[in-house]
Amino acid sequence: MTQGKKVVLVVGAGDATGGAIAKRFAREGYIACVTRRSADKLQPLVDEIRAAGGEAHGFASDARKEEEVAALVEQIETTLGPIEAFVFNIGANVPCSILDETARKYFKIWEMACFAGFLTSQAVARRMVTRERGTILFTGATAGLRGAAGFAAFAGAKHGIRALAQSMARELGPRNIHVAHVVVDGAIDTAFIRDSFPERYALKEQDGILDPAHIADSYWFLHAQPRDAWTFELDLRPWMERW
Amino acid sequence: MTQGKKVVLVVGAGDATGGAIAKRFAREGYIACVTRRSADKLQPLVDEIRAAGGEAHGFASDARKEEEVAALVEQIETTLGPIEAFVFNIGANVPCSILDETARKYFKIWEMACFAGFLTSQAVARRMVTRERGTILFTGATAGLRGAAGFAAFAGAKHGIRALAQSMARELGPRNIHVAHVVVDGAIDTAFIRDSFPERYALKEQDGILDPAHIADSYWFLHAQPRDAWTFELDLRPWMERW
Amino acid sequence: MTQGKKVVLVVGAGDATGGAIAKRFAREGYIACVTRRSADKLQPLVDEIRAAGGEAHGFASDARKEEEVAALVEQIETTLGPIEAFVFNIGANVPCSILDETARKYFKIWEMACFAGFLTSQAVARRMVTRERGTILFTGATAGLRGAAGFAAFAGAKHGIRALAQSMARELGPRNIHVAHVVVDGAIDTAFIRDSFPERYALKEQDGILDPAHIADSYWFLHAQPRDAWTFELDLRPWMERW
Amino acid sequence: MTQGKKVVLVVGAGDATGGAIAKRFAREGYIACVTRRSADKLQPLVDEIRAAGGEAHGFASDARKEEEVAALVEQIETTLGPIEAFVFNIGANVPCSILDETARKYFKIWEMACFAGFLTSQAVARRMVTRERGTILFTGATAGLRGAAGFAAFAGAKHGIRALAQSMARELGPRNIHVAHVVVDGAIDTAFIRDSFPERYALKEQDGILDPAHIADSYWFLHAQPRDAWTFELDLRPWMERW
Repeated sequence: MTQGKKVVLVVGAGDATGGAIAKRFAREGYIACVTRRSADKLQPLVDEIRAAGGEAHGFASDARKEEEVAALVEQIETTLGPIEAFVFNIGANVPCSILDETARKYFKIWEMACFAGFLTSQAVARRMVTRERGTILFTGATAGLRGAAGFAAFAGAKHGIRALAQSMARELGPRNIHVAHVVVDGAIDTAFIRDSFPERYALKEQDGILDPAHIADSYWFLHAQPRDAWTFELDLRPWMERW
Repeated sequence: MTQGKKVVLVVGAGDATGGAIAKRFAREGYIACVTRRSADKLQPLVDEIRAAGGEAHGFASDARKEEEVAALVEQIETTLGPIEAFVFNIGANVPCSILDETARKYFKIWEMACFAGFLTSQAVARRMVTRERGTILFTGATAGLRGAAGFAAFAGAKHGIRALAQSMARELGPRNIHVAHVVVDGAIDTAFIRDSFPERYALKEQDGILDPAHIADSYWFLHAQPRDAWTFELDLRPWMERW
Repeated sequence: MTQGKKVVLVVGAGDATGGAIAKRFAREGYIACVTRRSADKLQPLVDEIRAAGGEAHGFASDARKEEEVAALVEQIETTLGPIEAFVFNIGANVPCSILDETARKYFKIWEMACFAGFLTSQAVARRMVTRERGTILFTGATAGLRGAAGFAAFAGAKHGIRALAQSMARELGPRNIHVAHVVVDGAIDTAFIRDSFPERYALKEQDGILDPAHIADSYWFLHAQPRDAWTFELDLRPWMERW
Repeated sequence: MTQGKKVVLVVGAGDATGGAIAKRFAREGYIACVTRRSADKLQPLVDEIRAAGGEAHGFASDARKEEEVAALVEQIETTLGPIEAFVFNIGANVPCSILDETARKYFKIWEMACFAGFLTSQAVARRMVTRERGTILFTGATAGLRGAAGFAAFAGAKHGIRALAQSMARELGPRNIHVAHVVVDGAIDTAFIRDSFPERYALKEQDGILDPAHIADSYWFLHAQPRDAWTFELDLRPWMERW
């Protein structure tokens, strides 16, 4: 175990945001543990952090499986160090009319974007309370605040994760665990947006889409807050976004 | 099929609220179709409605099973009449510390109080849109608006059902389907409250707990609203409730 | 004083909604007391209620003047009867860019749509608490829930009235005063909409704008609720309204 | 005019929070302009900033007077530099039963905590839009999110300021002005809390009350955000605060 180093665990580091958060914490000296279902896709991220002089480890882990989650947390805590910060960053936005939505997809979206958040944050929280310290951060979305036509499944999952975050914050705040929820409102600079929504992506030149590195700055800001002035929730959106 | 009669389907009619809603609609001439997992417990309700001159039918149906739900709706629509009003009334509030909550219970609460709501309301909505009319009502709770220590699972499910209701309302309102969400805030006059919270129950003398018949009046009010002035959400609480 | 009759006081009965509420309560046997700044415009409403067999009285009263408000309430209570229900229904929506808004108009909108609500509801509440009964209803708007470009003044006033309603409800509920807030979201069938927004008004044929009589039904519903199941807030919008 | 230096204007710098914000921005190289009704009380703050090597100017200015506000902004912009960041930080929390609240006090609280915010932020915004840059920050409170028994006046003012902030953000965001609202939830380390709520103040040892310097860090964070990832609202509360 690297003596004295702290760990950040980012579950759902497959996308730009999770990766940027891992890099941000690594720059601050944290051991970045990043997960997604298949580890091979994590290697470029791990390599990039290491090339910058940081420490990073990739884990293939299905956050929907309680045993895998328990094993992951156990492995990190015993071989790398205490998880000081945890980020749940799995999204699953696939719009669909409520009339056409399949039960399977409605379930899958919840399982990935909400249930996995429960399993992972709980496993980490159980460690943190024994140390009476730690930060738990959830990536949210506007759909977590209100439903919309075509978004019943995604809104349901995101509402669920916000309810989880709020319930945890109220229970664990007094135990010195900082729980917070970030409402990302707008398109993020990702390959997905670039390929699927080129007109949206073109707004990048005017800073009209979110830079993952800037999202990551807010996660670090939340983690760094002293405990007399903790934020539970903040929103992030481009200046030109309608809301 | 009873010529020209309309059907109200109440899923989760095992408790006082669901039963009261069924009775209220039956009094207005609706065929009351009531469900819970085991039909035998429904018989007293069915008998009571019939004794009062109404028409009622009890169905054993697991609202968490897509096929059972489809069969139930098919049976009602082909043998009794069009479902004009639908009420989803399954709750599942079992408080627990986030640290102790089991994955199984977290899932079960969501499955009962949210997933079943998706399955049933979708099945009914698919019929209603073909007729371009109908009302879909969800029983909500304060936990659907904010999380609380010890209530992560229940809050998650209730947030999810509210997200579903809001998404459906926005999509189906313009198709002439009235979707609404009732936030019940306070103890209801039930055997459960009487037996488990006698001090709370004692407030009944001062109208300090909710009478299911009065809750039912609000459901009927929502259903009866003309479409130029539909309510999406209303809350219900005793006068002396702190909130 | 008419023996045993109850009074409804509608402040801001100049528009269609206030008038419809007065008529609705008059039909239920209430003495309708209606006010606006100049009494002459009230005469048609008073005449209409009387022609329908009801009792109505019009009062010229500036709701922004504490002394006038006190005198009005005193006069009604001593000559007509106890104010059982009170409705504050003054709006003042004049959109403007925040850059162009004048201090005078920002103040006037607040004075009319919020300060007058404080003065009048307080004066009535002071009577109601001595009798330990009564209903206080506020007409709200979507602007009371969120601000919007061009609506800083109106949103400010409507947020203020909602804060007042919520504070009163929490303080006076336990004293048996039912305080509620109605969020009207959409165009109402008024001469103003007809003349200024003809395209919007054309939606009337499809029930796309709110009928004041239907809004009034909701006010009556709120007033009639038994105290074990009071609603604090409900929204009203046409089925086809986007929200 | 100090060549090239930017100005932060803090209206309501009489309390600990406003002063801490001024100091924070001064440390970053901003000219700190601080106001309150009487300038003499500002001298210690101005002296402290100067002693630390910063630049500061105190202004006696009644933020409720449109002419004074216009003169203040004109003076700063012509003699010191462009106002790059503006903070409205006037509070006015004097709880009172809704039955006992005087019209004068209800008005005064709104005038100080809301109307002054409109006057000052508008005056500054008119300058900022010509430069297409700037930050406008409002100090909010939990009372801006919900009313409470005894807090009708304060809640009304704080709801109003939040409506203003939200309306401005939606209108001016697309003009490159960052408008944000900070919800301070909890007691702040001030002389007032120390003298009036000693039991609350004793929580300071456990970080149970907010340190103004930490509040100020969040204001700086908001100002420093790049425009592709702006926050409109964040809350701040001590770890042990119940909410």
